[in-house]
Amino acid sequence: MENTINEQTTAQVITPEQFLGHYQGHRNLTRKVIEAFPEKEFFNYSIGGMRPFAAMVKELLAIAVPGLTEIVSGHTSELDENRDYGSTKADFLKKWDQDTEEINTLWKQLNAARFQENMKLFGQFEGSVLSQLQYFVDNEIHHRGQGYVYLRALDVEPPFFYDRS
Amino acid sequence: MENTINEQTTAQVITPEQFLGHYQGHRNLTRKVIEAFPEKEFFNYSIGGMRPFAAMVKELLAIAVPGLTEIVSGHTSELDENRDYGSTKADFLKKWDQDTEEINTLWKQLNAARFQENMKLFGQFEGSVLSQLQYFVDNEIHHRGQGYVYLRALDVEPPFFYDRS
Repeated sequence: MENTINEQTTAQVITPEQFLGHYQGHRNLTRKVIEAFPEKEFFNYSIGGMRPFAAMVKELLAIAVPGLTEIVSGHTSELDENRDYGSTKADFLKKWDQDTEEINTLWKQLNAARFQENMKLFGQFEGSVLSQLQYFVDNEIHHRGQGYVYLRALDVEPPFFYDRS
Repeated sequence: MENTINEQTTAQVITPEQFLGHYQGHRNLTRKVIEAFPEKEFFNYSIGGMRPFAAMVKELLAIAVPGLTEIVSGHTSELDENRDYGSTKADFLKKWDQDTEEINTLWKQLNAARFQENMKLFGQFEGSVLSQLQYFVDNEIHHRGQGYVYLRALDVEPPFFYDRS
């Protein structure tokens, strides 16, 4: 009986490595969506007064490495969605790939025990480390889904949603 | 030293209850998006040849309870995105609320040890129970994000992304 209880409490729903794999899989897909955009429309196209996809990607870049750096270091930083990454899709893709490596490096400093800790990210968002990281992923899926509509409206076939390679 | 290792292996990144709370929070938000649609446009409006939001919601309903029932029971079922839930937004919201309760009930039969088990869902999707459930959530966020663009294009203010109550 004691053994059964112990097995249940030690079984991991998701390991930190699986969480990272899931996140990077989604980032791989977002990269494909950036690539799929026509150069000009990446920066200019919008529907219903929403932001162009480049502005959404700026938000994702403002959250991922700066947010993870804060989670790992404990030093509060600012959420700055207006950083300049250049003026071409290639510039954004280069930054995206640099951040992919940076996230892998930062993640090594994050152990399972940290996920249930509470913190206030960017000096304003209160919640567990888990909830912060879930927000990173969910927010990326949300905006990328919007990018899919832009692509369809532009008559461009988006990548398959399940393609995370 | 042994104690430290033990603490790391037993720390839960996310508990089954937290996963459910996260999923239901997203489902609450999707419910608000359904509510925000004008009645006719929920069924008819589309951009770029995509499906109307009602058809996307049919997909979500086809996955959630049927998928979770299969995970819990082990009995393979069919993915049927064309079930008839009625012809009004109110019909869909009623079904949505019934499924909210059903998901809560089914979830009680799912313990932490199940998440890392492999299975083939709906007779076609191979992966761990964890990856299946992540797909349920991610796919809902993805399509709901598309619903946000429809709402903006219809000049309707969507609910805040972080409002999961």
